[in-house]
Amino acid sequence: MMLGVFTFAKAQTTPTPPKMVPEMTEFWEPEVKVITPGTGAGTTAPSDAIVLFDGKDLSQWVSVKDPSAPAPWTVNKGVFTVKKGTGNIQTKQSFQDYQLHIEWQIPANITGKSQARGNSGIFLASIGNGDAGYELQVLDSYNNRTYANGQAGSIYKQFRPLVNAMRKPGEWNVYDVVFTAPRFKEDGSLFSPARVTVIHNGVIIQNNTMIKGPTQYIGIPDYNQPHGKAPIKLQDHGDPSEPISFRNIWIREL
Amino acid sequence: MMLGVFTFAKAQTTPTPPKMVPEMTEFWEPEVKVITPGTGAGTTAPSDAIVLFDGKDLSQWVSVKDPSAPAPWTVNKGVFTVKKGTGNIQTKQSFQDYQLHIEWQIPANITGKSQARGNSGIFLASIGNGDAGYELQVLDSYNNRTYANGQAGSIYKQFRPLVNAMRKPGEWNVYDVVFTAPRFKEDGSLFSPARVTVIHNGVIIQNNTMIKGPTQYIGIPDYNQPHGKAPIKLQDHGDPSEPISFRNIWIREL
Amino acid sequence: MMLGVFTFAKAQTTPTPPKMVPEMTEFWEPEVKVITPGTGAGTTAPSDAIVLFDGKDLSQWVSVKDPSAPAPWTVNKGVFTVKKGTGNIQTKQSFQDYQLHIEWQIPANITGKSQARGNSGIFLASIGNGDAGYELQVLDSYNNRTYANGQAGSIYKQFRPLVNAMRKPGEWNVYDVVFTAPRFKEDGSLFSPARVTVIHNGVIIQNNTMIKGPTQYIGIPDYNQPHGKAPIKLQDHGDPSEPISFRNIWIREL
Amino acid sequence: MMLGVFTFAKAQTTPTPPKMVPEMTEFWEPEVKVITPGTGAGTTAPSDAIVLFDGKDLSQWVSVKDPSAPAPWTVNKGVFTVKKGTGNIQTKQSFQDYQLHIEWQIPANITGKSQARGNSGIFLASIGNGDAGYELQVLDSYNNRTYANGQAGSIYKQFRPLVNAMRKPGEWNVYDVVFTAPRFKEDGSLFSPARVTVIHNGVIIQNNTMIKGPTQYIGIPDYNQPHGKAPIKLQDHGDPSEPISFRNIWIREL
Repeated sequence: MMLGVFTFAKAQTTPTPPKMVPEMTEFWEPEVKVITPGTGAGTTAPSDAIVLFDGKDLSQWVSVKDPSAPAPWTVNKGVFTVKKGTGNIQTKQSFQDYQLHIEWQIPANITGKSQARGNSGIFLASIGNGDAGYELQVLDSYNNRTYANGQAGSIYKQFRPLVNAMRKPGEWNVYDVVFTAPRFKEDGSLFSPARVTVIHNGVIIQNNTMIKGPTQYIGIPDYNQPHGKAPIKLQDHGDPSEPISFRNIWIREL
Repeated sequence: MMLGVFTFAKAQTTPTPPKMVPEMTEFWEPEVKVITPGTGAGTTAPSDAIVLFDGKDLSQWVSVKDPSAPAPWTVNKGVFTVKKGTGNIQTKQSFQDYQLHIEWQIPANITGKSQARGNSGIFLASIGNGDAGYELQVLDSYNNRTYANGQAGSIYKQFRPLVNAMRKPGEWNVYDVVFTAPRFKEDGSLFSPARVTVIHNGVIIQNNTMIKGPTQYIGIPDYNQPHGKAPIKLQDHGDPSEPISFRNIWIREL
Repeated sequence: MMLGVFTFAKAQTTPTPPKMVPEMTEFWEPEVKVITPGTGAGTTAPSDAIVLFDGKDLSQWVSVKDPSAPAPWTVNKGVFTVKKGTGNIQTKQSFQDYQLHIEWQIPANITGKSQARGNSGIFLASIGNGDAGYELQVLDSYNNRTYANGQAGSIYKQFRPLVNAMRKPGEWNVYDVVFTAPRFKEDGSLFSPARVTVIHNGVIIQNNTMIKGPTQYIGIPDYNQPHGKAPIKLQDHGDPSEPISFRNIWIREL
Repeated sequence: MMLGVFTFAKAQTTPTPPKMVPEMTEFWEPEVKVITPGTGAGTTAPSDAIVLFDGKDLSQWVSVKDPSAPAPWTVNKGVFTVKKGTGNIQTKQSFQDYQLHIEWQIPANITGKSQARGNSGIFLASIGNGDAGYELQVLDSYNNRTYANGQAGSIYKQFRPLVNAMRKPGEWNVYDVVFTAPRFKEDGSLFSPARVTVIHNGVIIQNNTMIKGPTQYIGIPDYNQPHGKAPIKLQDHGDPSEPISFRNIWIREL
C-alpha cells in the first residue's frame, strides 16, 4: 500500500534544518575600533599605542631598585643603552595582555661568547625585584652558540626559538611580541598560564608558547606567585662586554 | 629527652629537593636552525622561505577551475591583479602549518560599498573548488562599514578583527599570518581546530583564533570535511569594482 | 695529524647537562589535601562536598522567579520532583569552577516524543532569569530520537554527546560534571570560554568541551554577558508529560 | 527639519541580522551512537567497551619483557596480582584516545613507607620497555606521606592530584581515566601534548592535565619520542612489600 510505504519513509526521515539566509551570520555591532597603523611594514607606532620610547627620553621608565627614581640608563642619538651596574629598569605603567614592539642592537664590537656576549632580557611581566618575571632572552646569537633554550628569542631556560633569525652585531633586531598574562584563582593557584607569540625580524619564533612559570636560573619553573598587571622590565645583566641598545618601543593593551 | 625532641622534629619535616645547578636546565642539542631574516622589519623573504610571488610570474600558482592550467591573473610591474571572471587561483604546492607574508592593495579608484568594494579573500587552506576553505577576508575596510565579521582581517563570518588597521585605497596592506591546520581523527571527526594569528600592517588582529570550521556564506560552520595538506587560494570575487592586487608573497612551513 | 682531528672533534662538542638526582623533581610541599571519598564507585558525597540535596529538603535551593522564596518543587521519599508551572529553581549559593554529581529520573510512564518527553535541564551557571545560562540537557533520550545537539547529555544546541548512554524511564541516570567557568577581561570581553566534562552513567560524553556561549534557543551563542560566580539552575520546562525527579546532588568547588 | 533628523538617524543605523527560527540550530544527523551503560554508577563495562579483565584470565595482556609471552601475573578469585620480579605487563592491543576504568587494591597488610609502600603504576601509553611512558601513579597514599607529585593519582613527577581521595589498604580504589594521546608532526616534533582527566573514587583529581612528556624518574620530561597508538602498561615495581591487585578493567576507544 502506498500509505504503508509513505509511513515507512516518513518514519526514517529526520528533519533537516531550514536554510538560513546570509544576513543571519552578519553582525555589524559593535563597530570594530578604527586605528591608524604604523608606516611601512608597521614598525612605527600605530595610533592606539603607548609609546614607551621615542628616541628622546626615558620618561616612561624607572629604576627597578628604586621605582621612585628615574631610569638611570643612557639616552644618546635616539637610542638608549644599558648602563652597567645601575640595575634593571622597568615601565612606569603596568600591563596585562599586550602587543609590544621593541628593537635592540648588539654593539658591533661585542666580545665574549655563549651567555657572556651581549646578554640582556625583556621580562614580559616583572613580578619582583632583580630578575623575577617571564624572560624573553636578548643575546648576541649571531655565530655565537649557547644552550638552545638560552639563545636570543628563547623563553629563557624554557623554550628554544623555532629558528635562529638573528642579525649580526651592529644591526638592529626587532621583536614583535603578543603576551597574554597568566590568570590565577582566588586561592592563588594557577587558572591559565602565560602565553607568548614572538616574531623576530619578521620570522615567527614562539607561537602561542605556554610559559611554564617565572624564569628560573636554577631549578624548575612553577607558578607560585599570583600577580595581576605588572611592569615590563629590561635587564642590566652586568657583563663586561659592550652594552646593548634599544629603540622604537611601543605597546598596545589587548 | 633531647633524642625524643629531635625525633619529633624530624617526623614533621619533609624533604626539600636538593639544589640543582644552572647547567641542569641548559639544553644545547639539537642546535636551533640558523636562517637569515628578511631586511628591515622583516618583510622580505627570509632564507628558509618559499617565495610564492617575487614580482615576475605566477609560476607557483594554478587555476582552481583547472589545476593543470596556469593561473590566469595578470602580472604587471611587479604585482599581480585579479582578472575578473577567471576564477580563483591557488598555490601549486600544499601546506599544513605555516607562516605566510602577503601584501595586497585596494585600487585607489575603488567604488562600491560594504562587501561590494574591493572584495577578495585568502583561503588559508583550500579544501575544495569554489570558495571552500578557511577565509581570511580581503576587502576595502577604509571608511567602508560592513558587518564586523566580514570586514578586512575577519575570519569571514566567524571572527571580527580585534581592530580595524586598514590603509586607504592605493596603499599597500600587509598580512603576516601564522596558520595551524586542523587535525582529524582516523574516523574523520575533528581532533583539533585550525588556529590563526594575523598581524595587519604591524597590528595584531587575530590572536591564535580557533576557527569554527570551513567558511560558510550561509549557515553555521562545522568541521565535516577532514583533510590534510592543502593549497592556499586567492579569491576572484567577481565584483564590478576595480580589482585587487597582490605582491611580495612568501611562506615558511612550520 | 691526530691532534688536529681531536681538536676538530672537541670544537664540535657541546656541553651535556649534568645528571640530576631523583630528589630534584620530588616536591613534598604543600601537602595535598586529604579527603574521604564517597562509597562504592564514589557516588555518595565525599567529605569536602557541599550537599545540595540529601533526600530531606530543598533548603539549598530557591525559586528563580523570587530568590527570596523557597524552591517550590516537591520532595517525597528522598527525591524531589519538578512542580510544573512553578518555574525554575536554583542553588542559594553561587559557584565558579566545580565538580557536580547529580542523579535524575524520567518517570516510567513518560509520554510524548522528541523534546516534549521528559524535558528539563541543568544550567551550569545561571546568568539571568528564565533559561539564561549554559544548559546541560536533561531529557528522555531512551528510544526517543530528537536533534542530536538537543538530546540528553548535549550542551543544548551546541554540542551533541559523544554517545547516547541513556537509561530507560523509571531508572536513575547519573551525571558527573566538571565545570570551568568562563573568565572575562576588564572591558567585558571574553578571556576564556567555559569548559565542561560530563560523564553519563559512567561514560564520558563531553570531554573538556569548550562552550560557545550562553545557550540560545534561537540564534547563535555569544559571550556577551560577563559574569562571575553564579548559581546552578534546574529547569521547569512546563511540558504536559510527567515531571522529572532528582536525587543525590553534591558539589565540590575547584 | 524632521526629515533631516530622520535621514541622519537612518545613516547611523546598521542592519540587524534577521531573526532565525529554532530549527536552524537543530541538527539531527548523524544519529548519536546508542550504547548501554554499565549498572549502578556505571562501574561495570558499557556495551561498547573492550573488557581488559573480567576476573577470569589475563588473555588481553602480555609480558613487556617478551610480548609474545603471556602476562605472568597471578589471577585468583576474580582479581589479578602483581607477581614480583616478573616485570611489567601490557595490553595486547594498542590505543590512542580512550576512556579507561580500572580498580586496584593495596593489600591490607601493606608495610613500608613513602614510595616503598604499595608502589605500582599505570602507563597510559607504553612507549618502550621498562617504565617508558606516561605514568599515572598507583601507591598506598592512605596515611602515607610521600612527595606530592609522586603520590597516588599524580602524573608521576609532574602533577600532584588535586586532592588525596585514597581509600585504606584492603579496600578497592577506582580510577576513571580519559586520555588523549599526544600528536606529533611529520618531522617528529610535538604537535599537541597528551592530556588526561582522572577521577579517583568519584573525585576529580586531574582535570585535562597537559602532560609534560614521558615520565622521567631522573630529569626533566620532554616529548622526544614520537609515537602512535600504544599499549597500556601496568608496573611491577619490585618492592619487598605485599603486591597490588587489580580488577574490573575496561576501555572505550574515543
